[in-house]
Amino acid sequence: MIMEKKAKAAFEAGIKLGALYHQWVGTPISPQTAGSVEKAIESAVGLQPFVDGITVKIDTSQMVLNAFGYSELSGKMFDVKIRTKVGNATCHAQLKVEEDYPMMKIIELI
Amino acid sequence: MIMEKKAKAAFEAGIKLGALYHQWVGTPISPQTAGSVEKAIESAVGLQPFVDGITVKIDTSQMVLNAFGYSELSGKMFDVKIRTKVGNATCHAQLKVEEDYPMMKIIELI
Amino acid sequence: MIMEKKAKAAFEAGIKLGALYHQWVGTPISPQTAGSVEKAIESAVGLQPFVDGITVKIDTSQMVLNAFGYSELSGKMFDVKIRTKVGNATCHAQLKVEEDYPMMKIIELI
Amino acid sequence: MIMEKKAKAAFEAGIKLGALYHQWVGTPISPQTAGSVEKAIESAVGLQPFVDGITVKIDTSQMVLNAFGYSELSGKMFDVKIRTKVGNATCHAQLKVEEDYPMMKIIELI
Repeated sequence: MIMEKKAKAAFEAGIKLGALYHQWVGTPISPQTAGSVEKAIESAVGLQPFVDGITVKIDTSQMVLNAFGYSELSGKMFDVKIRTKVGNATCHAQLKVEEDYPMMKIIELI
Repeated sequence: MIMEKKAKAAFEAGIKLGALYHQWVGTPISPQTAGSVEKAIESAVGLQPFVDGITVKIDTSQMVLNAFGYSELSGKMFDVKIRTKVGNATCHAQLKVEEDYPMMKIIELI
Repeated sequence: MIMEKKAKAAFEAGIKLGALYHQWVGTPISPQTAGSVEKAIESAVGLQPFVDGITVKIDTSQMVLNAFGYSELSGKMFDVKIRTKVGNATCHAQLKVEEDYPMMKIIELI
Repeated sequence: MIMEKKAKAAFEAGIKLGALYHQWVGTPISPQTAGSVEKAIESAVGLQPFVDGITVKIDTSQMVLNAFGYSELSGKMFDVKIRTKVGNATCHAQLKVEEDYPMMKIIELI
């Protein structure tokens, strides 16, 4: 039973990370507007079921400005930590670049 | 020549409206978080070339909350006014629901 | 250990479902083009790590055509079954409308 | 009057290019699946009002495969030609990389 709840907490964390990645990748962004996008993502994901906490940081050092002076939100810029809760089970997961790949992984599942 | 600039102003306004629609549709949203999404969209679109002004209102009265207490940003919720400028030409355009269709149109082109 | 693999299989299934939902929602669609979108989604998701199988059906009966004769891919139209595999652990999950909500859930985790 | 129709044809071309860019950027893709995505985009955009023709090529030489053997559809991969028609006015426009920027422009407006 606890196994089942843990698996569901992991499943729900995966849903949220996959969803936010594909919802927001491609958004025009700059160091000046990163804060408003971080806040909008946190607000949006925070609405979804089983989300117990989320922090979104966008790594502005990864932004390569184009000829028009802005960049585009890409996988490598994300630094997201999320916590989902299903009954007594809690999953901590993250989205963060690892060797150039925006890796999603479970950090702790209790 | 002015014709050319006007056409380009119209083209650029179209790009921005088409882009923002498909970038943000599907975002989890509620009356409480609509403000942060409006601000993020305005910030993002404001970065793009030829944008001279933009206001985004999300019509919270169109939100039908699901079993988990939130909604999803849909075309009918958008009320966007945008102004693009190419040389001396200015295009005012909008995205707003008309007979259940999220209609994008040119309001004024001068 | 097997617990860990099961949780990861569930996490990966969640990622894929969340991702595909937010990647494709909003796509212009009609009964005639549904097949090409189903195929494109299956191809795209099939590329991702740990995916062992996926079938995508778009329920054309849910399409309400707008004044221009087409519809927009929405959550209610999805009927997706996915199988992820991490070591010996396998997760069967689905995305399907339940009481008007596009529900993602684990069907079997072995 | 013809001016007005030309501007609208340009506006409509812009909408379609902006929309398709932000709808599909981020899709998992590989040289083997590029064809199915090209077809799905052409089908989807072809449904929209005022579209008189569209061809989508995805430049597979731009794909850098990640550790899992796939890539992600990015702006630089697009080579799109679109033709919109409003009354007697026709707009030919394209989306194609120029100096590392996915440039959308009007090619001909008659």
